[in-house]
Amino acid sequence: MYNELVKILGENKVSKGISILEQFSHDESHHEWVKPDVVVFPESEEDVVKVIKFANKNKIPVTPYGAGSSIEGNPIPVKGGIVLSFQNMNKILNVYPQDMMVEVEPGVLYKDLNKYLKTYGLFFAPDPGANASIGGMIANNASGTRTVKYGATKDNVYEINVVIPSGEVLKIGNLARKSSSGYDLLHLFIGSEGTLGVVTKAYLKLVGRPAEMSACIAYFNSVEDAVNTVAQIIMAGLDPAALEFIDVNVIEMLNKEEGLNLTEKPAILMEFHGSNKISLEEDIKFVVEICKDNNVISYDLGVGLDERERLWEARHKTYEVILRTNPGKKALIVDAAVPISKYPELVIFAREAIKGVKGYIFGHAGDGNLHAVLVGDKNDKKEWEKLEIANDKIVEKAISLGGTATGEHGVGLGKRKFLEKEYGKNTVELMRLLKKTIDPNNILNPGKVL
Amino acid sequence: MYNELVKILGENKVSKGISILEQFSHDESHHEWVKPDVVVFPESEEDVVKVIKFANKNKIPVTPYGAGSSIEGNPIPVKGGIVLSFQNMNKILNVYPQDMMVEVEPGVLYKDLNKYLKTYGLFFAPDPGANASIGGMIANNASGTRTVKYGATKDNVYEINVVIPSGEVLKIGNLARKSSSGYDLLHLFIGSEGTLGVVTKAYLKLVGRPAEMSACIAYFNSVEDAVNTVAQIIMAGLDPAALEFIDVNVIEMLNKEEGLNLTEKPAILMEFHGSNKISLEEDIKFVVEICKDNNVISYDLGVGLDERERLWEARHKTYEVILRTNPGKKALIVDAAVPISKYPELVIFAREAIKGVKGYIFGHAGDGNLHAVLVGDKNDKKEWEKLEIANDKIVEKAISLGGTATGEHGVGLGKRKFLEKEYGKNTVELMRLLKKTIDPNNILNPGKVL
Repeated sequence: MYNELVKILGENKVSKGISILEQFSHDESHHEWVKPDVVVFPESEEDVVKVIKFANKNKIPVTPYGAGSSIEGNPIPVKGGIVLSFQNMNKILNVYPQDMMVEVEPGVLYKDLNKYLKTYGLFFAPDPGANASIGGMIANNASGTRTVKYGATKDNVYEINVVIPSGEVLKIGNLARKSSSGYDLLHLFIGSEGTLGVVTKAYLKLVGRPAEMSACIAYFNSVEDAVNTVAQIIMAGLDPAALEFIDVNVIEMLNKEEGLNLTEKPAILMEFHGSNKISLEEDIKFVVEICKDNNVISYDLGVGLDERERLWEARHKTYEVILRTNPGKKALIVDAAVPISKYPELVIFAREAIKGVKGYIFGHAGDGNLHAVLVGDKNDKKEWEKLEIANDKIVEKAISLGGTATGEHGVGLGKRKFLEKEYGKNTVELMRLLKKTIDPNNILNPGKVL
Repeated sequence: MYNELVKILGENKVSKGISILEQFSHDESHHEWVKPDVVVFPESEEDVVKVIKFANKNKIPVTPYGAGSSIEGNPIPVKGGIVLSFQNMNKILNVYPQDMMVEVEPGVLYKDLNKYLKTYGLFFAPDPGANASIGGMIANNASGTRTVKYGATKDNVYEINVVIPSGEVLKIGNLARKSSSGYDLLHLFIGSEGTLGVVTKAYLKLVGRPAEMSACIAYFNSVEDAVNTVAQIIMAGLDPAALEFIDVNVIEMLNKEEGLNLTEKPAILMEFHGSNKISLEEDIKFVVEICKDNNVISYDLGVGLDERERLWEARHKTYEVILRTNPGKKALIVDAAVPISKYPELVIFAREAIKGVKGYIFGHAGDGNLHAVLVGDKNDKKEWEKLEIANDKIVEKAISLGGTATGEHGVGLGKRKFLEKEYGKNTVELMRLLKKTIDPNNILNPGKVL
């Protein structure tokens, strides 16, 4: 397969070097590493078409690979074959400031993109924390701290080019702000984790950098008080740009490892964006009232710019810090989401469910999205099984509350078992049927999602 | 077929009365009326399943029918067979005020729903103008005056139940505020115009009634000035809750027919929603600056509540009034949308393109959505052809600007010819393949979209 790919693409776009195969054998999850047979580095849509056609003809698995920052095994080439790395398709093609839109190749990295857009006063809002690739974010429907205000990736894409297994290039979506034209294939491909098609270009929706920003942190005596506050802020119709819950042991860890100086109590971290100070102040007054109703211990309403950046940086690094402080251990991550009124119930349930395992609870609370990072020794079957049981319990609880098995990390390898529980057999059968229709040879990222 | 359906459902849910067949033979468009063979009135999901199973087994066309308010022929039973009317599945099942969500049957009407929700301080935001059914809005991905702020129907649905041609009931979506779980079938069904499945239940996202509202109207010497103002308001990152363009002859007509007292100049009509007066005032100050930069003649910043309601009522009735003032004529409606920076170009182009036909231009300008209602005698082939040519020109222009053939009315019968121009052959072929996969006997709303 290597020789044939070299013939098709040229030598410098194909590798079977052992260190390269190693590099593309894993993501940031606990899932087992699997080396591909070969890694290709396309430089254009035409290159991608050539690879897909070759793979489809020869029924060779193809796993698209962005930055490798996912945490559910999404880009691990579990069936071997070809990894399609987009690291060389990383150009920002055009910025359309008037339409608040940018045209990019899939290998562009999230943080690089936003750094570049700073001079335009614009940014791409879904904030996965990690420096994910745009292609990976689209594949995964990534989201994060800013989603509570600005939506997930699926809410921020106008148009994509996709190569489907037949080798055809499809233009999906259009550049208008709304459309009722034909079937919405855009959302079918977004979040399909590279199992239906490979994105080669995207037009992303940008938002203006807010004129005013305000960050606050509030501490509570109990987790109940903290998460009730979260739910009440959302239910009051306030519009935070971030609303995070952080449990005590996470704060303790961040204080120690990242040199923060936070009160070691259950906390909520908020950010508000607006066009003027006065309206932000009004919102924050309201937030303070809600905090007081829930027995807040203390709060800091005017977290300064430097401290804010340090806080978010630390928050984004939580997963990394957890792994670092637990050397030799692996982490299983709960990523359930529920309607906001059920969020306190889910968090309390999760705290119970993880008793007896090492676990850290935090999450994008404003979206009803709970993370519990459960840490253990994967080689210790008994220990790891406890983690799995806790995860299962929490996810099943979330589903029973009308929620979802994965708020933002995708199904990948680890959440497949919950799909039928969440949607029912008929719905998942239809997903399977669509996969089979679009990818009859099952070449695209096989072993994932379904 | 009538007798068999009576056997399945009982006599009072099935009709072949001539006046009933007539009633369900058309929508509000110019498209030719076609009578179904029979109309059924299901009262439950089980009834729908029975009808679909019967129809699929016998390869009988089934056309779902909501309020009949669509304007692109979307629910006309062009192949005869069964019309599935949802007028008796019109219950509001549950309101979840804390989660700002409502659970409804598909026959619930938009205006009735919002009247009911008033006491909760909530509303379902997509505003199609007509008193459409929720099922029809979902089928069509309806939108309207409020979409510029709150999104289209597709942005405001959490979960639906769908009956697919096999007779299976699918739960699609979930109630969490975000999810990355499996393929996004929700958006595939929303906007598929009843050609893939029949919605039997929906959980809708609601928004809080704004604490403060402000309506303004501004008049300009030229269409150019008015539409440039629109584009600049959006590009400035302001967040209007409505931003409509109305051309002179529409204003003249509304003054005369609806007793309004507007200045007879190209106008833009705006609404702003906010949590406090001060922030609205800030926004409006900014709007005034932009208007002045574009040679505004005059403006009214504080349109009172009564007048505002009268204005919106009149705006919503524009289509109806056009038909009333042109008795015996039919209307062909342009519904193109483009990126906002291209909106002025499209409007100017449209004004040129409709010279020589009777036409009225207005639209949801903040979304880049242009309507031109072209009026003529459908029996006069030559006259009607002129309308068709003007429509074709405008739509093709919109597509060449990166836009869409239909911003909100759907493809129905009239926009099918543009689908390949908008997306390319490969993409439309994939839509056809999905249709064939889900509905192999082509029973659901045949003759539409594709």
